[in-house]
Amino acid sequence: MKVVATVSGGLDSAVLLYRLVQDGHEVKAISFDYGQLHVKELGCAAKLCETVGVEHRVAQLSGLSQFLGGNALTQPDVVDVPDGHYEDESMKATVVPNRNMIMISIAAGWAIAEKFDGVAIAVHKGDHTIYPDCRERFVIDMQHALRTCHYTPVELRAPFVNWSKVDIVQHGAGLGVPFVWTWSCYRGGSFHCGTCGTCVERREAFQRAGIDDPTPYVNTARTKK
Amino acid sequence: MKVVATVSGGLDSAVLLYRLVQDGHEVKAISFDYGQLHVKELGCAAKLCETVGVEHRVAQLSGLSQFLGGNALTQPDVVDVPDGHYEDESMKATVVPNRNMIMISIAAGWAIAEKFDGVAIAVHKGDHTIYPDCRERFVIDMQHALRTCHYTPVELRAPFVNWSKVDIVQHGAGLGVPFVWTWSCYRGGSFHCGTCGTCVERREAFQRAGIDDPTPYVNTARTKK
Repeated sequence: MKVVATVSGGLDSAVLLYRLVQDGHEVKAISFDYGQLHVKELGCAAKLCETVGVEHRVAQLSGLSQFLGGNALTQPDVVDVPDGHYEDESMKATVVPNRNMIMISIAAGWAIAEKFDGVAIAVHKGDHTIYPDCRERFVIDMQHALRTCHYTPVELRAPFVNWSKVDIVQHGAGLGVPFVWTWSCYRGGSFHCGTCGTCVERREAFQRAGIDDPTPYVNTARTKK
Repeated sequence: MKVVATVSGGLDSAVLLYRLVQDGHEVKAISFDYGQLHVKELGCAAKLCETVGVEHRVAQLSGLSQFLGGNALTQPDVVDVPDGHYEDESMKATVVPNRNMIMISIAAGWAIAEKFDGVAIAVHKGDHTIYPDCRERFVIDMQHALRTCHYTPVELRAPFVNWSKVDIVQHGAGLGVPFVWTWSCYRGGSFHCGTCGTCVERREAFQRAGIDDPTPYVNTARTKK
């Protein structure tokens, strides 16, 4: 099939990208600049797409930050990026309101304009606790809406929706994903901080998967769990 | 309830705005600059909101035009704005891919950030022939998705979805909507052209509703239907 993949430059969507390409799909990739701190991941997205010869475009949505305020990713002056475990209650500060519906809708618009068949996203089970718009129920609802938004249906694929991040790391290792060119940290530093929710989640996933973690972390203190 | 209304500056959303305010809802209004030709309507949206004391913001989405190409509203160099009747097959050239899902998703993001209850849109029956994302099936699917995108449901209201434009004009006249500050024309001139699909639809609606049409049209040739 012909599919627009949302590729953030993070680990999960890197594995999604490699999977789609290796499954023989024709792929275009879209990233979003919505005023988040860690635009560093956009460079990772571009690099990852280059490695597999996939067209990559960035949708400039920084004009949306005025509408999506009150979270740690777009308003660091208002809300601190929390340290801790990815599934802690404190991570709700990192929720960007309706982010996934916004991204999926734009990716689907591009898919329609290109006469592509569908859209693919990399949400996974580890996201479910904190992020409602990563849960299977939401994915199913969006699948319905994407069938009726245009003359022909747009298919929404979320192959990892019931996978753990450990599953994704193992799958990605098998696909030869260059993890060193993926970015997870919620903070905007030169290296992964090692202590924010996504850094903790990333480190744990590599450890549990038994896969060598190539990421240089600023703080390598042991995680609690 | 507290509701974010998508207000384009067109006739339908002007009536929606007035209806919501007169029903006693707390309203904020959002318009979208997605690279369309007729940004003149954005000025109308601001003016209309001013008349009812509603906060109005414009979401700058011009960065999306590279993704939504191939239609007469965002790529006039590629596709001409068609003359004719609003329900003619030729009007498919004015379809902006997935426009309504994109707009609804951003409006809902703002509603969540503001702790508002819902989003309101002004789609109507006259849109159904050409625009799939104005049909009731799509509205229902989006209502489901908006219930699961966040911790608490976001309500989607589309009170005109089964109304004709004639119904809307009559309703708006009763509400005292200042129609002269609404903009329908797909072309970007100083005045309504009178011959594009939306101008024809607008003229017909006033005629059939028996309401005085305050719009100065450049071309006032009789419509076919």
